[in-house]
Amino acid sequence: VERRIRIILLESSLELVPESIRRHPKILETARRYGIPPSHVILDKSLHYDAMSAVPKKWKRGRPDIIHTTLLILLDSMAYRTGSLEVYMHTISGEVYAFAPNLRIPRNYERFKGLMAQLLRLHRVPPSDPKPLIWKAYDDLEEFVDQTGGLLLLWEKGEESTEVSVVKEALEYDYAIGIGAFPSGDFEDNTLSLSSIKRRLVGGIVLPAWSIACRILSTYENIIGVMKASD
Amino acid sequence: VERRIRIILLESSLELVPESIRRHPKILETARRYGIPPSHVILDKSLHYDAMSAVPKKWKRGRPDIIHTTLLILLDSMAYRTGSLEVYMHTISGEVYAFAPNLRIPRNYERFKGLMAQLLRLHRVPPSDPKPLIWKAYDDLEEFVDQTGGLLLLWEKGEESTEVSVVKEALEYDYAIGIGAFPSGDFEDNTLSLSSIKRRLVGGIVLPAWSIACRILSTYENIIGVMKASD
Repeated sequence: VERRIRIILLESSLELVPESIRRHPKILETARRYGIPPSHVILDKSLHYDAMSAVPKKWKRGRPDIIHTTLLILLDSMAYRTGSLEVYMHTISGEVYAFAPNLRIPRNYERFKGLMAQLLRLHRVPPSDPKPLIWKAYDDLEEFVDQTGGLLLLWEKGEESTEVSVVKEALEYDYAIGIGAFPSGDFEDNTLSLSSIKRRLVGGIVLPAWSIACRILSTYENIIGVMKASD
Repeated sequence: VERRIRIILLESSLELVPESIRRHPKILETARRYGIPPSHVILDKSLHYDAMSAVPKKWKRGRPDIIHTTLLILLDSMAYRTGSLEVYMHTISGEVYAFAPNLRIPRNYERFKGLMAQLLRLHRVPPSDPKPLIWKAYDDLEEFVDQTGGLLLLWEKGEESTEVSVVKEALEYDYAIGIGAFPSGDFEDNTLSLSSIKRRLVGGIVLPAWSIACRILSTYENIIGVMKASD
């Protein structure tokens, strides 16, 4: 049985401002405030709500705070610090990023968004370092699934399960556990069709990604703790 | 055995800008940006680092992000949603705030800081509502301890323990579990002397408050789950 576990944030609500709205006053205001071009601005619903009215699937977009909080929980965990957790981020535009072991992301939300803007533009940070801290590891979710072995999706329409069963299945089949990192709406068909197993937790109650991450992490840490004790 | 649990964030690194630095250019810049008086600005090290050079104990101050992330974890948990977790926030200036059941705090960091500024100024939000969402429940930590029954402090110099033991002790004695919510340095003598029990987790490794909160929450949810099953 594999002891390492992979968690992937799916369809993460994190993107640069789409070209169609880069001239909106709210976007220009953000760009001016930070002294950056509009194409370097991360879409953030709390600032750009007015600008997003004509953006397709706007209910899934512009929530970098979800990724920030969830990454803080994942990357500050003992599982990550001890090297037994791998973390990936699949974005709403498709590519999959990987995080270096022992990485700590900025605690401050503005700094986090600045780092993410650089990542989404250049596909690695720091851009010129041969050993980046975060980098594009796969072009799309299909490549991630093909190369890592499979995906167990947490989905409120999946088969009823528990955190313990989900973690054990992921370890047994060496599947990544997928957590949606968007505010509302459902997964894309492509994500659903790439998921070998679909499970729902807590009776399908919708919890934020960070709460799901906390529950999965703690369960995993308990299970590998138990495994270690019975060696 | 009591099944409810209380978690209190201790010496939370959250405050209005102290009077001595309200005329610093960095503070005035923040006040101007939000169109508020300097006295309504929450101290934030990521913005006000330069202004904080002469502030006493500056290493413990100006980190509202710690409280934001930790409250997101606590208040979005199943334990809180089902009414079995009570959450309190003791601030660096001494008073203790309580949170209404089913409260969800702003996901956005700027909005969170805005809400906290109102709370710290007026001691309740919304200010005129007879049933506030957050309010000053105790004038100081001593009053909290006297009236709620006691405090079990998580402290890296405490006696070695585990999450399971800590949660069971807290339930058995009906003590609140205290988690430090400041970035570095130690607890004040007053906090230490008000703590009936002091325990350290994960061998004294220093984890952020949100990681500790996640571990305690998950353990608690497991334990009351187990209790329910054996009823």
